[in-house]
Amino acid sequence: MKAAVIQQQNRATVADNHQHSIEQIRQAAKQGAKLVVLQELHSGPYFCQVEATDFFDLAEPLDGLTRTTFEALARELDIVLVCSIFEKRATGVYHNTALVMDGDNGFAGFYRKMHIPDDPGFYEKFYFTPGDADRIGFTPIDTKVGRLGVLVCWDQWYPEAARLMALAGAELLIYPTAIGWDMSDDDDERSRQLGAWQIVQRGHAVANGLPVLVPNRVGVEVASDGNEINFWGNSFIAGPQGELLAQANADEETLLLVDIDMARSESVRRIWPFLRDRRVDAYHELTKRLID
Amino acid sequence: MKAAVIQQQNRATVADNHQHSIEQIRQAAKQGAKLVVLQELHSGPYFCQVEATDFFDLAEPLDGLTRTTFEALARELDIVLVCSIFEKRATGVYHNTALVMDGDNGFAGFYRKMHIPDDPGFYEKFYFTPGDADRIGFTPIDTKVGRLGVLVCWDQWYPEAARLMALAGAELLIYPTAIGWDMSDDDDERSRQLGAWQIVQRGHAVANGLPVLVPNRVGVEVASDGNEINFWGNSFIAGPQGELLAQANADEETLLLVDIDMARSESVRRIWPFLRDRRVDAYHELTKRLID
Repeated sequence: MKAAVIQQQNRATVADNHQHSIEQIRQAAKQGAKLVVLQELHSGPYFCQVEATDFFDLAEPLDGLTRTTFEALARELDIVLVCSIFEKRATGVYHNTALVMDGDNGFAGFYRKMHIPDDPGFYEKFYFTPGDADRIGFTPIDTKVGRLGVLVCWDQWYPEAARLMALAGAELLIYPTAIGWDMSDDDDERSRQLGAWQIVQRGHAVANGLPVLVPNRVGVEVASDGNEINFWGNSFIAGPQGELLAQANADEETLLLVDIDMARSESVRRIWPFLRDRRVDAYHELTKRLID
Repeated sequence: MKAAVIQQQNRATVADNHQHSIEQIRQAAKQGAKLVVLQELHSGPYFCQVEATDFFDLAEPLDGLTRTTFEALARELDIVLVCSIFEKRATGVYHNTALVMDGDNGFAGFYRKMHIPDDPGFYEKFYFTPGDADRIGFTPIDTKVGRLGVLVCWDQWYPEAARLMALAGAELLIYPTAIGWDMSDDDDERSRQLGAWQIVQRGHAVANGLPVLVPNRVGVEVASDGNEINFWGNSFIAGPQGELLAQANADEETLLLVDIDMARSESVRRIWPFLRDRRVDAYHELTKRLID
């Protein structure tokens, strides 16, 4: 199954961003991609660098412009497409939401980011209500290319999220992402951060015997207060033993396309049957904040 | 804090194995190590390559020869020492158990392997009763060098185990290991397996903001039925962002010693406060075998 992730930089307008994404998606489909994944909040800037109420104007409903635009494209090309929006669910309740379009079947479902970060330059707790635990939670979405475990960015640091998706039958793990460097960190720290980010997600692939697809933003975005994030790109696709199948660099817009062997998870889980040996009788304290 | 892991091959007798370990531990202590970790079942061969009742003769009680030998050494050198034994707990109940000696405080505690593998050449379910969920489970052990999250080999594939140790306050993750290649696999598969093994454990370091120490066996061991395992060494120590601090190769006995900055976890967990944002309201299904 050919799959692609698109790494892009932010442009001046939503229309410009959509136009670039559409060109890349068409290119991917032309090369045989059946699944294409866009990065986190690909319609606009990464506005969470500062806390400003005006940015709520960027939000759109579940059935807004991003969905109508990309659902039509997914139908036309008959490919599975994973998009990301700043969702206005109600006045005062906004989410960071991924949308899944299932080719000519149309809209297949959505996922609301469950783990919300908050650290200097990434003030997401101000903007995003965490996804409901009891409504959608960690529920994979069925499509023509398989059952997709769609998560978003900060979720990528949580083995619990990947595992719950795998237990619910996800066949691929997908993380639309917007992560970058604070350029006041030195080279060693930047290298460790990038390494950690990739390792933890490849680790989820290994622990769950599933491929993982990660498109990340690229380029520098400067906020009104002068805050700069250098989005580190390095979008990648890894196989079910965590092996890198493809990886972009830190500087360039990239269409990353690989052939994923969807039968490989079956053989990997046969030689390493981790799910068989889980100690479900001994995991109940995972629902605690701390064991103290 | 200087810490060491010892990668060694199996010798003809328990006495020979102990002698080599003792020499290496003395060497490590001489170089300033305050913590030394031995590999899984370091007193003897990796007997689980075949199922044979005679091998139960190799088992020893919790306070057997391995403990008395290495507890005395730990006291003498005043270092923390993590050992591994085939434990006879009762007639018909055997465990794969790690022992922790806390320098001149003596024996500090033990951990019984919770996840037990079973695949061709690694017939551990025949030999090892899984650790009790309600007695010790995933409980870290306090020592002079900190609270140790001691786990064993197959546990290393389970994010749940690492997380439970971290939630209970572990300051280091430790995995005595015996893993190797089936030489009928081709080079690519062997490379993927080694990579997966290292990535998943470095991933635990990242997800939990903790250093991880992993001594693994090295050398070929041939069983009575001709089964060969080429233990792949590659013992390593990684920091709390999963960064490699030291790594042995696949061929040689090695004393791997590094200085671990125990204050680093504090700063890493401040910049990436993953534990803060866990969705403990949404993890209850982690105690299910599958969500189907």
